[in-house]
Amino acid sequence: MRRGRGRRPTAEVHAEILTAAGDLLLTKGMATFTIEGVADLAGVSKTTIYKSWSSRGALALAGYFHAVSTTLAFPDTGDMTADLTVQLRAFIALLTQTPAGRAVAELIGEAQTDPDLMAAFLDRYADPRRQLAVDAMTLAAARGQLRPGVDPQVVVDQLWGACYHRLLIPSLPLTEAFAAALVRNLTHGVTTDQSHL
Amino acid sequence: MRRGRGRRPTAEVHAEILTAAGDLLLTKGMATFTIEGVADLAGVSKTTIYKSWSSRGALALAGYFHAVSTTLAFPDTGDMTADLTVQLRAFIALLTQTPAGRAVAELIGEAQTDPDLMAAFLDRYADPRRQLAVDAMTLAAARGQLRPGVDPQVVVDQLWGACYHRLLIPSLPLTEAFAAALVRNLTHGVTTDQSHL
Repeated sequence: MRRGRGRRPTAEVHAEILTAAGDLLLTKGMATFTIEGVADLAGVSKTTIYKSWSSRGALALAGYFHAVSTTLAFPDTGDMTADLTVQLRAFIALLTQTPAGRAVAELIGEAQTDPDLMAAFLDRYADPRRQLAVDAMTLAAARGQLRPGVDPQVVVDQLWGACYHRLLIPSLPLTEAFAAALVRNLTHGVTTDQSHL
Repeated sequence: MRRGRGRRPTAEVHAEILTAAGDLLLTKGMATFTIEGVADLAGVSKTTIYKSWSSRGALALAGYFHAVSTTLAFPDTGDMTADLTVQLRAFIALLTQTPAGRAVAELIGEAQTDPDLMAAFLDRYADPRRQLAVDAMTLAAARGQLRPGVDPQVVVDQLWGACYHRLLIPSLPLTEAFAAALVRNLTHGVTTDQSHL
């Protein structure tokens, strides 16, 4: 990873900074995450980093987003139920089997009393990830798979939000079976008698 | 609230400590919450408080639970959909129209890096509240209103967990319409074609 400071293209330098930030966050956690550490790992100056990221929190979030983008891609096979289940399983595996779960829980925790970090978290991570999920469901809706009137934004809270609930308030574990149950409840519905609705 | 130190019954003293703790947390927030402040407000000694609550966090949680118990009661009219919607609306009103939302968000945030506070939060607040919701749905299931095979615990994550998601990652607001949409999605189901399931 560490390289000399030749005239590398900006896009390449950016990608290396993001990779370094993601690596550092996921291996060491948020507590020891610093811009210096990322600069060192990426072989760039702190000044170079500050040109694009204004704070430690913004850099950590950008690195996190970069690190998880591939893992959290939305498949589109045409079967919304199957696609959602696959994506949620990947999300749960990331949260439970890699240091990402702890890292994002600590970020969200710290953001509760740090308005700048919260703004960065929403802007750089939560809002774009939410939009990707909504886009995936909008495709399914265009194929007639989503009941008219259903707001995909609310479905986001009932799938990924339900996972964040178990991450941040861990009364019960995040499992593969949980992913399947989340999707099944929303597709089948949880009631027997719909006549009173 | 402040009274002399006569020989009050333990239950009465406990109730006054819990009321004072809840008042202090909801008016001033977690940052300035102290055992001394509660002792002063309830007119008891710190020693009396320490007999029943081992830490600031445990006392704050007990006070919070006490303060919100009445507001967050589960109605049981026999109509699960209506009852859930009413309870979720009360929960959202508490989170958005009183200082409780900020207080619980800060508690959960602090708990991400404080294992003792997390253990206390689960034990004194999250687990008992989850059980109350499960009990309410188990009653409905006994009346045949819940589809067989549905795990009420997962429904908790898709209703109250979805609300915590918008509280802790506030990309979108917590509204009355959100409460209704959460229940509607789970009762009606969100898909049009269930044949591929």
